[in-house]
Amino acid sequence: MSDPLRLGVVGLGRAFMLMLPTFAQHPLVRLTAASDPREEARRQFEADFSTPASAARSYETPEALCADPGVDVVYIASPHQFHVEHVRLAARAGKHILVEKPMALALADCRAMIQAARENGVHLLVGHSHSFDAPYLRATELIRSGEYGRPRMILAANFTDFLYRPRRPEELDTSQGGGVVFSQAAHQVDVVRLLAGSRISTVRAVTARLDPARPTEGAYQAFLTFSDGASAMLTYSGYGRYDTDEQLGWLGELGQKRDPSQYGSARRALAKIATPEEEAALKNKRAYGISTGGAGPFPVPAGHNHFGHVVVSCDKADLRPTAEGVHIYADERNWLDRLPVPVVPRSEVVDELYAAVRNGVPPLHSGEWGMATLEACLAILDSAASGREIDLGGSPAGV
Amino acid sequence: MSDPLRLGVVGLGRAFMLMLPTFAQHPLVRLTAASDPREEARRQFEADFSTPASAARSYETPEALCADPGVDVVYIASPHQFHVEHVRLAARAGKHILVEKPMALALADCRAMIQAARENGVHLLVGHSHSFDAPYLRATELIRSGEYGRPRMILAANFTDFLYRPRRPEELDTSQGGGVVFSQAAHQVDVVRLLAGSRISTVRAVTARLDPARPTEGAYQAFLTFSDGASAMLTYSGYGRYDTDEQLGWLGELGQKRDPSQYGSARRALAKIATPEEEAALKNKRAYGISTGGAGPFPVPAGHNHFGHVVVSCDKADLRPTAEGVHIYADERNWLDRLPVPVVPRSEVVDELYAAVRNGVPPLHSGEWGMATLEACLAILDSAASGREIDLGGSPAGV
Repeated sequence: MSDPLRLGVVGLGRAFMLMLPTFAQHPLVRLTAASDPREEARRQFEADFSTPASAARSYETPEALCADPGVDVVYIASPHQFHVEHVRLAARAGKHILVEKPMALALADCRAMIQAARENGVHLLVGHSHSFDAPYLRATELIRSGEYGRPRMILAANFTDFLYRPRRPEELDTSQGGGVVFSQAAHQVDVVRLLAGSRISTVRAVTARLDPARPTEGAYQAFLTFSDGASAMLTYSGYGRYDTDEQLGWLGELGQKRDPSQYGSARRALAKIATPEEEAALKNKRAYGISTGGAGPFPVPAGHNHFGHVVVSCDKADLRPTAEGVHIYADERNWLDRLPVPVVPRSEVVDELYAAVRNGVPPLHSGEWGMATLEACLAILDSAASGREIDLGGSPAGV
Repeated sequence: MSDPLRLGVVGLGRAFMLMLPTFAQHPLVRLTAASDPREEARRQFEADFSTPASAARSYETPEALCADPGVDVVYIASPHQFHVEHVRLAARAGKHILVEKPMALALADCRAMIQAARENGVHLLVGHSHSFDAPYLRATELIRSGEYGRPRMILAANFTDFLYRPRRPEELDTSQGGGVVFSQAAHQVDVVRLLAGSRISTVRAVTARLDPARPTEGAYQAFLTFSDGASAMLTYSGYGRYDTDEQLGWLGELGQKRDPSQYGSARRALAKIATPEEEAALKNKRAYGISTGGAGPFPVPAGHNHFGHVVVSCDKADLRPTAEGVHIYADERNWLDRLPVPVVPRSEVVDELYAAVRNGVPPLHSGEWGMATLEACLAILDSAASGREIDLGGSPAGV
C-alpha cells in the first residue's frame, strides 16, 4: 500500500507556488511542515495543510524544520544561493532531499551537496526541471526503444516574457544567480540532455543583455555537441516579444491555456512600478501566503508542462514533444502520440521521488545529473564571455 | 522608358524552371536565347519565346550562346561544377552575368569569376537565392532604419523534403557539389547574412547523413557569429519529416499553397524508382521541355518565396519574415507588416539585375557576396569534419 512521503518545504516562495498544485494533490506526498521567514506564510501553511489526523507544522528556520522527526523529505525551494547550505542541513538530519533547479551556482557546491547526501545515506534529487515533463519522458522512451534510430540533431527554441516577470534585485544580477542562463538554460539544457542521452562534449554560446534596466542575460543561443555525435541548437529569449507558445497551440509552459490577445502584459504590469522595492513586493505577492490561499481547488491543466518548441531529428523520424504528447514524423506518415491530459501537473516529480525513497529506484534527476546541467550552464556563460568553444569532454560530471 | 534586358539562358534544367515564371512575366526582361544539350528543350524554347518581332534562338553550346549579339545578360543555370567555365565564357563575350547559387564549389573559382567579370567590365550577380525574397529585404530595411536597434540573435530553421526530390547522381555526392550544404545552406546562410548585416566571424557546425541510399549531407546545424556581435543558429533538414511550412501557414518555399495531407509524397514517389538512371530521367522530366510547356500561364503565387522559419531578435523587437510579410513583435504590440502578394514571383532578382545593368546600381548579390556565402558553406563542411570552430575573421571575403 502507498505510504505517502511526508514533505517539509524550505521556502514558501514562487518556486513552491509552482509546485503547490502537485504536492497538494498527488496521493503519494503530503505537505507536513515548512519553514519561511514570513509569518504570514507560516500561518497560512498551517491553516491549509493541517488535517484532523495531524497538524501541519511551520518553522522560522530551515534548521528547525530539519529537526522535525515527522518529515521524510525536504524540498529546498530557497533562493539559489542558499541551496548548498540547506542541502547540507537536510542531509545531516537524515532527510531525503529534493532541491530546486538550478542546483547551485558553482560546481564545488554541487560536489559538496552530492557528498553530503552520500555520507548521510539519503537520496538527492534536483527539480522540478522541465525534463521531468511527460512529453519529454515519452519522447525519450521512444528514442530508447530504438524504433526510430539514434537522436542526431535537436532544435530547441523558447521565447517567453521571463525577464519581465516581477523579480527580486538579485534575480537580475548574474553573479548572484540571476538571468536566463541560470534559471532557464537549467530547463532547456536539462531537456536536451535527456533527449540526446549522452554526455555533452562541447558548448559554444552567446548571451545577450538587451535592456539596461534589467542588467542580466535575457537571451542566449547555445550549440551543444554530445559524446555519441548528436548536436543541439538552443535559443532562448525572455524579452516578451515573439512567443513560441504559438507553436504549441497556445498552451503555456505550465500546460495552461494562453490568450494571445494579452500580448505585452508582463511588460505593462512592470512599467507601473517605480522602484526595485516595489517590484520585490510584487514578487512577494506571487509567493505563498494569505492572498494566494493554498489548499485548492487548483486549475485543471489543459495540457502538459513544456519548455517551448523542440524537434529531435533521429535517424528514422523527427519527434516533436508538445503540450499534448509527442508528434511523430516518420517516413510514411505523421501522427500525435497523445498523452492523457494530466490530472495533477508535474506529478512526474513526485513519482520519481517516491520511487527513489520508498523503492530504491535510482533517480534520473540525481545530484550528478543536476551538476552536469549546471556545468553546461556555466559553460554557456564562459563561452559567451570568451568567444570560444568550451570542451567538457574530459569533465567529471556525467550524464 | 524601360529597355528590357535580353536574357540568354545557359542550361534549361530545374533551376531555369524555377526562374521561368519570373523571366517569362517580368516586364524588364525578355527570354531571347538559350543553350542546352537537349534538342527537345531547345525546340520548346524557340516555340515558347519567339515573338512576331523577333525569333528566340537556341544553341547546343554555351559558347554559341555567348556569341549571340542579341544577348545582354547570360543567366548561368548549368550544374554547379560548370559555373566557373561558363562565367568565364560569358564575361569574355562581354555579357553581364547572373549565375545560379551556389556560385561555385571552391573559393578559387569564385575569385576567378569575380576577376573575369572585372577584367571584362561586366556585372556579375549571384542568384536566385532566397535572400532576394521580399520579406527578408523588408526585414533588412526595418533593421537598417534603426527603429528596432541592432540585430542580436537570429534563429533560422527549415525542414523540407529536399533530399527526396529526384536527383542526378552527382547531386548526392558532396565532392561534386551535392547535398544540402552546397544547395540549401547557400540559401539559409545568404538570408542570415543579409539580416545580420555584418561579416561572419566564426562558424561551428555539424552535418548528418541519415540515409545510406542518399550518401550526402541531408541535414546540418550551424552556429554563426558576426563581426558586430550578432549570432545565428541555423538548422536544416531535408529528410521529409517535420515540415517548417506548418509555421508559415502552409505556404511553401515558392509562395505556393501546400497541402499537409500530402505528407511523405516525395519519398513515396522516389520509392517507385529502381535505379539512379530512372531517377535522373525523373529529374529530367522536371526540367524544361515539351512535357512542361513554358510560355505560361503560370500559377499565381499565394505568398512570397521564403526559406523557412526565421526570427531576428533585435534590441527593441523581434522580426519574423514570413510568406506574407514581416511580423513585428515590439514591446507593446505585435503586428504583420504585410507585403502585397507578388504578381511575378522572384521579381526582386530581375529588379536588382536591371538596376545594375541599366542604371549602374551596385548589386547586393555581387560576386563578392556570393563568395562570402560559399566561404561559410565550406566552413560548415570543414567544421563538421574537424569538430572545430572555423575562424573567418581574417578572411578576404567581405559581406
